[in-house]
Amino acid sequence: MGRWEPDAESRFRAAALELFGEIGYEQTTVAAIAERAGLTARTFFRYFADKREVLFNGSEGLQQTMANALAQAPAGVSAMEAIAAALARAGDFFDDDRRAFARLRSTVIAANTDLRERELIKMATLSVALAQALRKRGVGEPDASLAAEAGIAVFRVAFAQWVSESERRGYGVIVKESLARLRMLAAN
Amino acid sequence: MGRWEPDAESRFRAAALELFGEIGYEQTTVAAIAERAGLTARTFFRYFADKREVLFNGSEGLQQTMANALAQAPAGVSAMEAIAAALARAGDFFDDDRRAFARLRSTVIAANTDLRERELIKMATLSVALAQALRKRGVGEPDASLAAEAGIAVFRVAFAQWVSESERRGYGVIVKESLARLRMLAAN
Repeated sequence: MGRWEPDAESRFRAAALELFGEIGYEQTTVAAIAERAGLTARTFFRYFADKREVLFNGSEGLQQTMANALAQAPAGVSAMEAIAAALARAGDFFDDDRRAFARLRSTVIAANTDLRERELIKMATLSVALAQALRKRGVGEPDASLAAEAGIAVFRVAFAQWVSESERRGYGVIVKESLARLRMLAAN
Repeated sequence: MGRWEPDAESRFRAAALELFGEIGYEQTTVAAIAERAGLTARTFFRYFADKREVLFNGSEGLQQTMANALAQAPAGVSAMEAIAAALARAGDFFDDDRRAFARLRSTVIAANTDLRERELIKMATLSVALAQALRKRGVGEPDASLAAEAGIAVFRVAFAQWVSESERRGYGVIVKESLARLRMLAAN
């Protein structure tokens, strides 16, 4: 079982989320995740440092994706338009294939203080990365930090909406609407 | 020494901040704080649950103050104007007497992961409280959450500016300017 397995990472992820939901995050062991996935613990550790990383190891990719979008936005667009480009890229990232995972993940995180804190740290790190990307575009302070924080505010509110049970629209649609609402709120 | 002591709370706070700066937060004991303050550990625990609360026990007061300001804002003002009223009240709260403490506190928190997480939790809690106060004013979702998160973004960026070494202006002036800048950013 130590050999290459097709889709091992996604099988571990699905197995872990099932167990987090069934018996709770704290009670779930890597051994149990591996058994549920039909793989070995040794293979698990090739993909994840620990069980917590099943929930968080996508965030570096998201951060890089959004920072790249900021860097690639056309020269001369405003700070908020550059943030809008980064949020649109997040909309591509959170496609409908990720939604079931994102819903389960949100439920697990909401039930555990340490995981909520970890999520807040990730959001703060993302905000710092976006502010840095804006400064590289020549946006000064405090504007870069304000625009980045406002972008994170939109990101978070839209995400909570996207994972809510009744919501059918895609993240890209929701985040675009949320940004438009924030702009409207700020103008009044 | 178990008797009532004038200014005991502020003496403990000053002593704790000194020690956090001198020997580090982790190394500082309640016994050492009490000794530095010229008071007893027993008296310390009348004011603070533990040494961490020296840094955070003001946040409930701030949250209540800002939520009250939202509730008392004139009927009919926009969500963002109500947020502006809450931020102005925070400007009264963070007067110049608090600045030296706030600077030391920021340095201590920046150096400790657990304290940074705690600070993020407090900010998230404040955001939830402001969104709730906006909903009580009749602001719907997602506008209430978006306006509250935007307000927290302004609050945080202004706070970082206020405690920076070179800054001389008061928090009230800085937070008002930060909100104006966010409004301008959002309009472009």
